[in-house]
Amino acid sequence: MAQSKQIGKQSIQFAHPPFIRGAASVVGKKEGEGPYGKYFDVIEEDPMLGQDSWEGAEGTLQEKAAKLAIEHSGCQKSDIRYIVAGDLLGQLMASSFGLITLELPMFGVYGACSTMGESLAVASMIAEGGFADNVLALTSSHFASAEKQFRFPLGYANQRNKSSTWTVTGSGAVVVSAASDIAEEDTPEKSLPKSAVEERNKVHIVGITTGKIIDFGVKDSMNMGACMAPAAGDVIVQHFKDFGHSPEQYDKIITGDLGLVGKDILIDIVRAKGYDISENYMDCGIEIYGEEQNVQSGGSGCGCSATMLTGYVLKMLESRQWKRVLFVPTGAMLSQVSFNEGNSVPGIAHAVLLERR
Amino acid sequence: MAQSKQIGKQSIQFAHPPFIRGAASVVGKKEGEGPYGKYFDVIEEDPMLGQDSWEGAEGTLQEKAAKLAIEHSGCQKSDIRYIVAGDLLGQLMASSFGLITLELPMFGVYGACSTMGESLAVASMIAEGGFADNVLALTSSHFASAEKQFRFPLGYANQRNKSSTWTVTGSGAVVVSAASDIAEEDTPEKSLPKSAVEERNKVHIVGITTGKIIDFGVKDSMNMGACMAPAAGDVIVQHFKDFGHSPEQYDKIITGDLGLVGKDILIDIVRAKGYDISENYMDCGIEIYGEEQNVQSGGSGCGCSATMLTGYVLKMLESRQWKRVLFVPTGAMLSQVSFNEGNSVPGIAHAVLLERR
Repeated sequence: MAQSKQIGKQSIQFAHPPFIRGAASVVGKKEGEGPYGKYFDVIEEDPMLGQDSWEGAEGTLQEKAAKLAIEHSGCQKSDIRYIVAGDLLGQLMASSFGLITLELPMFGVYGACSTMGESLAVASMIAEGGFADNVLALTSSHFASAEKQFRFPLGYANQRNKSSTWTVTGSGAVVVSAASDIAEEDTPEKSLPKSAVEERNKVHIVGITTGKIIDFGVKDSMNMGACMAPAAGDVIVQHFKDFGHSPEQYDKIITGDLGLVGKDILIDIVRAKGYDISENYMDCGIEIYGEEQNVQSGGSGCGCSATMLTGYVLKMLESRQWKRVLFVPTGAMLSQVSFNEGNSVPGIAHAVLLERR
Repeated sequence: MAQSKQIGKQSIQFAHPPFIRGAASVVGKKEGEGPYGKYFDVIEEDPMLGQDSWEGAEGTLQEKAAKLAIEHSGCQKSDIRYIVAGDLLGQLMASSFGLITLELPMFGVYGACSTMGESLAVASMIAEGGFADNVLALTSSHFASAEKQFRFPLGYANQRNKSSTWTVTGSGAVVVSAASDIAEEDTPEKSLPKSAVEERNKVHIVGITTGKIIDFGVKDSMNMGACMAPAAGDVIVQHFKDFGHSPEQYDKIITGDLGLVGKDILIDIVRAKGYDISENYMDCGIEIYGEEQNVQSGGSGCGCSATMLTGYVLKMLESRQWKRVLFVPTGAMLSQVSFNEGNSVPGIAHAVLLERR
């Protein structure tokens, strides 16, 4: 059996690419009113989701997305061997409390807003390494729990900078499954069982490029795009080098939440390294809200890239409108304490190569 | 090539067990004064480690442990493909800032004080799955940063409960490496190259049993042993079932930081399921400080199990005084916010099966 390849400095090319068997997106009211509202599975009108705290509300977002992704995958809960989950809150409060009812072995992960990239990478390695048939990977964010955690309580009604972003209320979850031998062989479709045909038609995780923490010394927590753009640029350029690819071989190169300020910085950084991504670049944070929604530089949070992936990106791939996407959630390594202590805000980004055959 | 086995509900038995190529422990003054002081690699007299914040000090613990583990493994930094690291602080502040200078692809993980079990599990799967030759797995805690994060600032000088634990100042790091074919074959030792002989003599990670989040509804953040014991009991019993083992087949069954209160609860819980671990049970939190050190129920924190593993447990295995150990770091899923909001403190524990051939 062919073995996965460690290619270049930071990438893996999977010999037997795992696939996304099922996915789900659960978002808040504001996200539902945005231009991608029709793509999301569930729009929650109540920002508290029936809970009595913002953190509880965010946990409920994860729980709902997890259960719906399992349902969409056609799996039972007992078919899932691991959860790989995380969020922005201290001690991963949303995942720690929201996913208890699933009663499944769990790996908590944290990569700030890049967490969906990390959870997909870890889940893919677990599935492809033969350690699980099905792994649930998910993350979330919530506008109110994030403001409380990182900025000011909502009641304080502070003014927002032009470079500041709006944390997405939402959770995206996927079931990542190991490839089956039969779907991978050259057997013509008509001789295949239905499950193998379905598997072939799913989105496959063909490779990953894992990011480093990169610190350009930016200290402005209201300008996270500038903090994250160098990390995104680094991992995207490394991905091209490791795979020997060029930008035009991708239908889309999609970052998590650089926003309008970070976008320009990223395109410049990548161009300086000899790659032009301006033609097929997209940022989930810029896309998720409409101009009239008054969100300054765009959306942010783990839930931003996670819901855009599960709501929109996977559908564009499954319908073959896109065939190859580099999905690059971006994170700003910021805590209230580190910020108050005058530290800079380093960034990290994790790239996941998604393909529809 | 043989494939790793998913055994039972929650375990993996590695076909080609990865091994711990090198390890390092860096602890604070109090830990150095305890009964295991002579086993630790570095004892830091300055609790600030030359930094200007407790969080910075903890990050420096990780940085020092990481670099020393790499040195002990005989690797260069460039031989390490991934870091798997985490800590107790919000947004993994110690790992996020402490490990920047390593400039390596990083997966941040969080399992409260069970994090060393999680980072070892993820690192083993990455190495055994063929995704890396060498993975650095580490974690840390610091008494002062933890008190500030979870309880009261030190200057407040609050009284300590009898059931409360003392967060260990320390970091433990290991380099987990993929097995080489040559060391695994039946070749007699005299015909083997030196590196393969060394590899055989290292501690191998033979399997893992991954824990679920378990909530018994305990709400006392000063009694974390009681919060974590049910999760530890659950994963230990599941480990025995999945592997078909019984307690007497282990030289030691070692939990992270249940302390004196949690120990009794754990032994009772496991006994109620038909297994008696009282004869070969050990808790890092009970061991790490002496009775005269006034630490109430014992030591705790990610750094507790991590430094006891890298300082003491691995040495007992390498010298063949022990041959098989079940290492079970234990975590209490507690945040300042969740506690203040009146939530219970769920637990999680991750078991790692260590063997010396």
